[in-house]
Amino acid sequence: MKGMILVMDGMGDRPIKELNNQTPLQAANTPNMDQMAKEGITGIMDSIAPGIRPGSDTAHLSILGYNPYEVYTGRGPFEASGVALDVIPGDIAFRCNFSTMDENGIVTDRRAGRIREGTKDLVEKLNTMVLDDYKDIKIIFKESTGHRAVLVLRGEGLSDKVSDADPKVEGKAPAEVVALDGSAEAEKTADILNKVVAKTYEMLKDHPVNLERIKNDLPPANVVIPRGAGAVPEVEPINDKYEINSACIAETGLIMGIARFAGMDVIEMEDVTGGVDTNLDNIRDTIIDQVKNSDHDFFLINIDGADEAGHDGNVKQKVEFIEKVDKVVMSELLKLEDVYIFLTADHSTPISVKNHTGDPVPILIRGPEVRTDDVEEYNEFATYKGGLCRIRGSDVMNIMMDYMNYSHKFGA
Amino acid sequence: MKGMILVMDGMGDRPIKELNNQTPLQAANTPNMDQMAKEGITGIMDSIAPGIRPGSDTAHLSILGYNPYEVYTGRGPFEASGVALDVIPGDIAFRCNFSTMDENGIVTDRRAGRIREGTKDLVEKLNTMVLDDYKDIKIIFKESTGHRAVLVLRGEGLSDKVSDADPKVEGKAPAEVVALDGSAEAEKTADILNKVVAKTYEMLKDHPVNLERIKNDLPPANVVIPRGAGAVPEVEPINDKYEINSACIAETGLIMGIARFAGMDVIEMEDVTGGVDTNLDNIRDTIIDQVKNSDHDFFLINIDGADEAGHDGNVKQKVEFIEKVDKVVMSELLKLEDVYIFLTADHSTPISVKNHTGDPVPILIRGPEVRTDDVEEYNEFATYKGGLCRIRGSDVMNIMMDYMNYSHKFGA
Repeated sequence: MKGMILVMDGMGDRPIKELNNQTPLQAANTPNMDQMAKEGITGIMDSIAPGIRPGSDTAHLSILGYNPYEVYTGRGPFEASGVALDVIPGDIAFRCNFSTMDENGIVTDRRAGRIREGTKDLVEKLNTMVLDDYKDIKIIFKESTGHRAVLVLRGEGLSDKVSDADPKVEGKAPAEVVALDGSAEAEKTADILNKVVAKTYEMLKDHPVNLERIKNDLPPANVVIPRGAGAVPEVEPINDKYEINSACIAETGLIMGIARFAGMDVIEMEDVTGGVDTNLDNIRDTIIDQVKNSDHDFFLINIDGADEAGHDGNVKQKVEFIEKVDKVVMSELLKLEDVYIFLTADHSTPISVKNHTGDPVPILIRGPEVRTDDVEEYNEFATYKGGLCRIRGSDVMNIMMDYMNYSHKFGA
Repeated sequence: MKGMILVMDGMGDRPIKELNNQTPLQAANTPNMDQMAKEGITGIMDSIAPGIRPGSDTAHLSILGYNPYEVYTGRGPFEASGVALDVIPGDIAFRCNFSTMDENGIVTDRRAGRIREGTKDLVEKLNTMVLDDYKDIKIIFKESTGHRAVLVLRGEGLSDKVSDADPKVEGKAPAEVVALDGSAEAEKTADILNKVVAKTYEMLKDHPVNLERIKNDLPPANVVIPRGAGAVPEVEPINDKYEINSACIAETGLIMGIARFAGMDVIEMEDVTGGVDTNLDNIRDTIIDQVKNSDHDFFLINIDGADEAGHDGNVKQKVEFIEKVDKVVMSELLKLEDVYIFLTADHSTPISVKNHTGDPVPILIRGPEVRTDDVEEYNEFATYKGGLCRIRGSDVMNIMMDYMNYSHKFGA
């Protein structure tokens, strides 16, 4: 028996006046999702707890059975996993921007003109960095998309209780990193980080990539500014925890990072953007191929476009994207038998708020022997009357394993 | 005001094709349960948490207000309570089989020909056992039904972190017991247990009961093989915790063990089997007598037949047993006024799975001033729409005490 959790990122919403007080999911024409609701059991879910506004990362952690309050130590470690930088427990990881700094030490462009090419070369140079005072600390950079990068510090006596170097606004020098808890480890890490920032400028200001950019009147990517410190936590791989063989099919580094963090196989796809323009045919074909032809028995699938439309406040795009997923993806999933399909979202991203909110999201479970209910539509309003009532993200894997018959009885 | 929790063991189920996609409880004709649903409030319950597959023991612990993750240390202590062996916190208890071993030390029958008589005499002999190396350790055996027995080790410096002596299959020697956590206490306990197993063979091989069995061509019960080590935990008696005077009316040693563990009085009944052939008249009469004539104000009642039918995969028996309970027991309970009746199950035992699953179970509460709801039938599908929504086993005693007006206000 196989199972999948299909997360429509940010799909939940609130009633919208221009949709006659319907949500985008209510207004969208989704015959395939509705058919699944008819055949399955439905409810609403708080991915962390009622009213808590989850990030996509913390929501996915919770849905995968990890307690985000225990394992989520900051964005850094998950960004690092997202760019396939192998981190180990104890590493301190940071999100970074390539930025532009002038000779007076003022950040003039936090995103270095949204640089798109050449960061791999810059990172190659940076990865030769050794600090005189901290020769035993390994300093590892990895480029991400655009101006983004990740920094990992590896060694003894480090801490993630340090402030950001990011000045947040342009026209200021990088912020001096300070210890947040007064510990010797944090003082040491802050000192290292300040030295790393200064050193990136030294190493990059005359780098050929930047000389070329200056020649072309582009802002040079001559400094790296870290933020979002997090200590890489130790976690039990999801395959061990549930005795499964799991894979993740996702579009964005953030979700792939969560999956790698949990020890899942990450299936690469071409032509997916994480936006409403993504290639849904590829996503569908990858899902079907994996379910039918791979040894994986459990899948986490994330489709990101509805969240993007929510952040953009674009109601039309959100409705249309949901309809497109229903037509292109759900129509085929509906044909799968002997597969448990959990269809849900990680959080709401209401058009009116343009950000995540704590509103619960609809969930449906369709598969063999599921107790059906009277709900015949899949949206925020129909499903609260469903047979699952209101559950939490932390219940999801337990319910999945029970259906897949992978659970062990607790007691006699 | 009195209150009772009536647990129909394993009654929950999944839709079954041959019942036109109804569950046994839906298909059964249960006018008295349905009348209670009409008069009361209903909902669904996860005895531990959504998706968790409970044993009957852990489920009952949770329903009685104990956290099974804290107090459930293994089967041993509950088996010991079940056979009325008085255990004290710190004791290490084991489930055991009387088995047959040949002169080469090979277990040839793990159940000693399913011996039914004479184990009391064998236990009498075994209870004189003293180990030369561990004179301060008390070694207590107690026979259970058939080939089953319980072993308790009492003394200083013991641990339940030891492996089983049970080889699981026949044709092998008893497994050497080893320490699971490398602690000195576990090493000591493992050594004791290995010596106990060897000593049982010495003491039993020429015992008159066995000589008689050999003469009659029956496998001798000449060795005792322990498994399922558990340290007896310290718990607050339920009567102290809730200021009640409680009693348990149950058929099986497992549930009686849980009740004794919680310090409840256990009411003995004749002619009850724990199966679909049990004497429901006796159970009903015992309940009515206790409610009307005893000083007990709170009752845990367990009727086991639906679980047996579920484990056997016998849909007809499950439906008929539920109907019989409705007719014989519920009809009379319906006449009780001023008694809070909670009717529920400890877990689902679906016909198709033949084992416990994590599917939630229906619950109804009927009694004075209970807020009624629109639900007019008692089954897995009708009750999810009820006024209780979805609750947990750990909520049940709190709700009961609140209705019985035994609760203390928390705060001002």
